Amino acid sequence: MNIPNTGKAPLIIRMHPADNVAVIVGVGGLPAGTEVAPGVVLREHVPQGHKVALEPIAKGEVVRRYDVSIGTALEDLAAGRWVNETLLAMPEAVGLEGLPLATRQPPQHAPLEGHTFMGYRNADGSVGTRNLLAITTTVQCVAGVVEHAAKRIREELLPQYPNVDGVVALNHTYGCGVAIDAPTAIIPIRTVRNLALNPNFGGEVLVVSLGCEKLQPERLDLPKAVMLKQETDSTEGLDVVCLQNEQHVGFGAMIDSILLRARVHLERLNARRREPCPASKLVVGMQCGGSDAFSGITANPALGYAADLLVRAGATVMFSENTEVRDGVRQLTERAATPEVGQAIIRELGWYDEYLKLGQVDRSANTTPGNKKGGLSNIVEKAMGSIVKSGSSAISGVISPGERLADRGITSGLVYAATPASDFICGTLQLAAGMNLHIFTTGRGTPYGLAECPVIKVATRTDLARRWHDLMDVNAGRIADGEASIESLGWEIFQLMLEVASGRKTWAEQLKLYNALTLFNPAPVT
Amino acid sequence: MNIPNTGKAPLIIRMHPADNVAVIVGVGGLPAGTEVAPGVVLREHVPQGHKVALEPIAKGEVVRRYDVSIGTALEDLAAGRWVNETLLAMPEAVGLEGLPLATRQPPQHAPLEGHTFMGYRNADGSVGTRNLLAITTTVQCVAGVVEHAAKRIREELLPQYPNVDGVVALNHTYGCGVAIDAPTAIIPIRTVRNLALNPNFGGEVLVVSLGCEKLQPERLDLPKAVMLKQETDSTEGLDVVCLQNEQHVGFGAMIDSILLRARVHLERLNARRREPCPASKLVVGMQCGGSDAFSGITANPALGYAADLLVRAGATVMFSENTEVRDGVRQLTERAATPEVGQAIIRELGWYDEYLKLGQVDRSANTTPGNKKGGLSNIVEKAMGSIVKSGSSAISGVISPGERLADRGITSGLVYAATPASDFICGTLQLAAGMNLHIFTTGRGTPYGLAECPVIKVATRTDLARRWHDLMDVNAGRIADGEASIESLGWEIFQLMLEVASGRKTWAEQLKLYNALTLFNPAPVT
Ligand SMILES: [Ca+2]
Ligand SMILES: [Ca+2]
Ligand SMILES: [Ca+2]
Ligand SMILES: [Ca+2]
Ligand SMILES: [Ca+2]
Repeated sequence: MNIPNTGKAPLIIRMHPADNVAVIVGVGGLPAGTEVAPGVVLREHVPQGHKVALEPIAKGEVVRRYDVSIGTALEDLAAGRWVNETLLAMPEAVGLEGLPLATRQPPQHAPLEGHTFMGYRNADGSVGTRNLLAITTTVQCVAGVVEHAAKRIREELLPQYPNVDGVVALNHTYGCGVAIDAPTAIIPIRTVRNLALNPNFGGEVLVVSLGCEKLQPERLDLPKAVMLKQETDSTEGLDVVCLQNEQHVGFGAMIDSILLRARVHLERLNARRREPCPASKLVVGMQCGGSDAFSGITANPALGYAADLLVRAGATVMFSENTEVRDGVRQLTERAATPEVGQAIIRELGWYDEYLKLGQVDRSANTTPGNKKGGLSNIVEKAMGSIVKSGSSAISGVISPGERLADRGITSGLVYAATPASDFICGTLQLAAGMNLHIFTTGRGTPYGLAECPVIKVATRTDLARRWHDLMDVNAGRIADGEASIESLGWEIFQLMLEVASGRKTWAEQLKLYNALTLFNPAPVT
Repeated sequence: MNIPNTGKAPLIIRMHPADNVAVIVGVGGLPAGTEVAPGVVLREHVPQGHKVALEPIAKGEVVRRYDVSIGTALEDLAAGRWVNETLLAMPEAVGLEGLPLATRQPPQHAPLEGHTFMGYRNADGSVGTRNLLAITTTVQCVAGVVEHAAKRIREELLPQYPNVDGVVALNHTYGCGVAIDAPTAIIPIRTVRNLALNPNFGGEVLVVSLGCEKLQPERLDLPKAVMLKQETDSTEGLDVVCLQNEQHVGFGAMIDSILLRARVHLERLNARRREPCPASKLVVGMQCGGSDAFSGITANPALGYAADLLVRAGATVMFSENTEVRDGVRQLTERAATPEVGQAIIRELGWYDEYLKLGQVDRSANTTPGNKKGGLSNIVEKAMGSIVKSGSSAISGVISPGERLADRGITSGLVYAATPASDFICGTLQLAAGMNLHIFTTGRGTPYGLAECPVIKVATRTDLARRWHDLMDVNAGRIADGEASIESLGWEIFQLMLEVASGRKTWAEQLKLYNALTLFNPAPVT
C-alpha cells in the first residue's frame, strides 16, 4: 500500500497493486460521476470505507483486496461500481490440512535498544504498569459484598496508601451453577487463577470465597502467587476470606475481614516504586473491535509496525481473535517461527472450528452490522484487515485460552493468544496471559476500558477521532488523510505505549470507564 | 413429615414413615453412642444435616428419603450408621418417555381472599413492587458509560424525583462477539428484551446502544414496551441513545443525552403512587442456592406452603432450576394441570438433557462441595428437597428460558419456569418472565441480591440465621427447632411477601448487595 504523505487525503486507497477494488476515503463518501482513478468514474454514490471496482469484474471472477480473494462477483460488475456484501459470494473456509509450516521466515530486523519505561518490578521478573490491589473472587455470589468492600477500601484505606493506584474486584459470573468437571472447564478456571497473577497486582493475592461454591479456592492452585511476591515465602498459605466462615457474625464482620486482609496487601503494594525498566518488559495485548474498512488501512497497519518495534525491543506482543485470523491461517502458519508453532496455531483454530460447529455456526458468525456499514463485506475481508496488526515478525509462541505466557516459558516475541474475538472475552484472556498494556483499534468507535490494565484506543478515521476527542487516544486516520505515514504513526504508538506504561493515564482511565471481566466458558451451565 | 411443635428440637427428622434414613438436627451433629430413636444408636459421630440409617440396610438395597430412592447402599449399613455420598450409588436418571400426565390433580383449596399489598399499577395490568428507572443496554461495550450515567442520575437527578426508588443499569456481557444467528440465540435476546418490560420499571424503556453491535435495538422488538405504559401510544418509537450517533461530540455529550432522556422517564415514574392491589398481582420467583439437608425439611416446605397460599390468592408463583427437578419429573408431570402442561415440562427437561449432553455432562454436574458438606449426598436427594418448595398446587403453566409469562397469557397459578439452577441465571430469567418479588432459600448462606426486584432470603437453620442476622430475612430453622410449624412459617412468609411488596426493604436492599444479571446463552461466542 502506498499513500503519498502529501498532507492531502487521496480519494481512494488500494491496498495492493493486484487488487481490483479500492476503498473510498472521504467522510460522507463520493457522489456518482466522481473520477476516482484515471478512467474509473463512480456509477453511483459510494459511502466512506466502501469498495469501488477499479476495472470490470465478470460474474464469478475473484474480487481481490490485500492481494487475496475476498469472494467472487455474483454479477458482472462495471468499473466504478459500488462492490458491497450483496454482490459477493464468500470464499469457502481454508482447510487446516497441508498448510505450509514455518516456510516464510520474515527478515530479522536489528534489535531495538535503549527504550525504557518506568514500571513496578515484581519478584518473578515481570513488571507492572499500574500498582493495583486486586481482590480475586471464586464465585458471583460474593460480588455484592466485594463491591461494598472495594468501595470502603477506596474511600477509607487508599488515602493512607498513596502509592497504590486503585483496588479492583475481579468479579465474574463463573464459580457455581456451572459444569465444573466438564472437559473444557479448565478454561474459565485457569482464567480466574491467572487473572490473579497479572503483573499489575504485584503478586499480592487476596481471595474472597463464599464457602460452598464449586470453584473452591484450592482449585485455583494459586500458591505460586506468593512466589511472584517473594520467592522464599512459598510456605505461606493462600490469603482467603471465606464469607461462610463461622467467625463472620453479621455482614459487618465480613467487610471487616476483607479490610483487615486488604491492609496487609496495601502495605506491601504501597512500598513499591516505579523504576526504569527496558521496553522488553512490556507485555502488550492487541485487539480490534467495531472494525471498518479503515481498520486494515490505517490503525491496524500502524499497530503492526509498532508490534514489530516491540518485538525488536524484546517485548512480548499478543494478537488474538480466532475468527478474525481463521481465513488468513496460511499467512500465520507460514510465518510461524517453527513447525511446532505452526502446528499449535492449527490446533487452536481447529479446536475453535469444532466449538463453533457444535453450536451450529461457523466463522461467518463474526461480522456485525457495523462492520458491513463500515464497508467490510464479510469475515474474509475483515480478517485480512485484522491480521495486519500482527506486523511482520515471526510468530514465536502460541497460548490456549486462559493460559499464562509464563507457564509456557514465553518472555518475548510475537505470540498468538488464541481467544474468541469478543472484546471483553479477548481482553480478559489477555489479562490472564499476563498483559500489562492493552491497545485497541476501532473504526466505528467504542468506549472500551479495563480496570486491570491501561487500554490505549486507536481510531481508524479522523472523523471518529475528532468526534470522540476524549475517548480516542490516537488518531490513525491521519494516515488516510495523507498527514502521517504508517511508519511515523507506528513509532508514535510505540512511544505512547512507553509513556502509558510509565503512568500516563489513557482517556478510559481518566473517565474511569471500565468493562466487565468476561470469562470464556465453553462448557454448560447447570 | 411430623415435627412436634413442642418448642424443643428433635434429635433427628424423618421426612416420611417409609424412609429408612433420617437427618441429624443439632448444630455440631451428634456423637457416637447417642440413641436417636428407640434402638437406634449412632455408630460414629454424624454431622448436622447428615443422614443416619434407622434400620439395617443391606448392600444393594434402596436408601429411602422423601419416600423415594436416593440411591442404593454400596455396602451393608447397620442401624445407626452415618449414610453419606461415599456409601450410595446414585439411581439412573428417570426416562422422559411414558410419564403420567395430569393424573394426580391436587385437591383444590378454597380461594384466599382479602389479602392486599401496596403496589405500583401499570397500564397493562401488571404491578410493580418497586419504582425503578431501568436503562436497557444492547451490548457490554456501553457498560462503562451507562454506569457513569447511572451514578450521575443517582446523585443529581433522583433527589428531584422522590417517588422513584432508584436507577438500574441492565448491563450484561451479551450483544456482540456472540453467534447471534445460532438457533438458541433467541434465549439471550428475548431475555434482554423482556428484562426491560419487568413490572418494576413501569413500562418506561430507555435503551443505550453502541451502534455497530450485533444486537441492534430493533432486534429487541420492544415497541410493546410503550404499550405497557400507555396503550394509545403505540406509534411512539423506542427511546434509544446511540453512542455512535454523530450528534455525540465527546463523552460529555453521551452522558448529557442519557440524562436528558432519563428525565423524561423519571418525570413519569415520579408520578406513580402505591395503591392497594390484590395479592393476585404478585408474581413471585422462587429459588434455592447453597442448599443443605435442611433445605428440604424447613425452608422449602414452608415456602411450598406459602406458594400454595399464593396460588389460592390468585397470584403467579414460579419455580425453576431444571437439574433440581429432573429426578422428580414424574411428580411434576403427574401434578400438571393438563396433559399439555405435562408435555411442556417434558419438552423443557428433554431439551436441557440434550444441552448438558452436548457439553459432555449430565444432571449430576449440579451438586456442590457445600451441598455434600451440608448432608446432601447427590442430585436426587437435593432435587427432592428442592421440588418441595413448589407446594402442592397443580402446575398450570410452563415457560421457556427468557420468555415472559404475559406472552404465554399466564396471569396466575403455579408455573414451571424452565431455567438452569445457577442462582444468577435463574434470577435473571425469572426477572425477564415478569417477577416482581423474589424469594430465595439457603442452607449454607449467600448474600444474594438483585437491584431489579426485592429478594427475601430464608435460612434453613437457626445457626445460620443467627450468624447472618443482617442478611437473612426469615429463619425457617425454627421448624427444626420445634418452635414453629411449616404452616405457621408458610403464613409468616406469605405475610412478609405482602409487606416487602408494599415497600418494606429486605436486608439485601438495605445493604445494597446486588449481583450481576447473567444471561443464559447456550450458543457459542465468536
Ligand atoms: Ca476484532
Ligand atoms: Ca475484538
Ligand atoms: Ca437450587
Ligand atoms: Ca394473578
Ligand atoms: Ca439456584
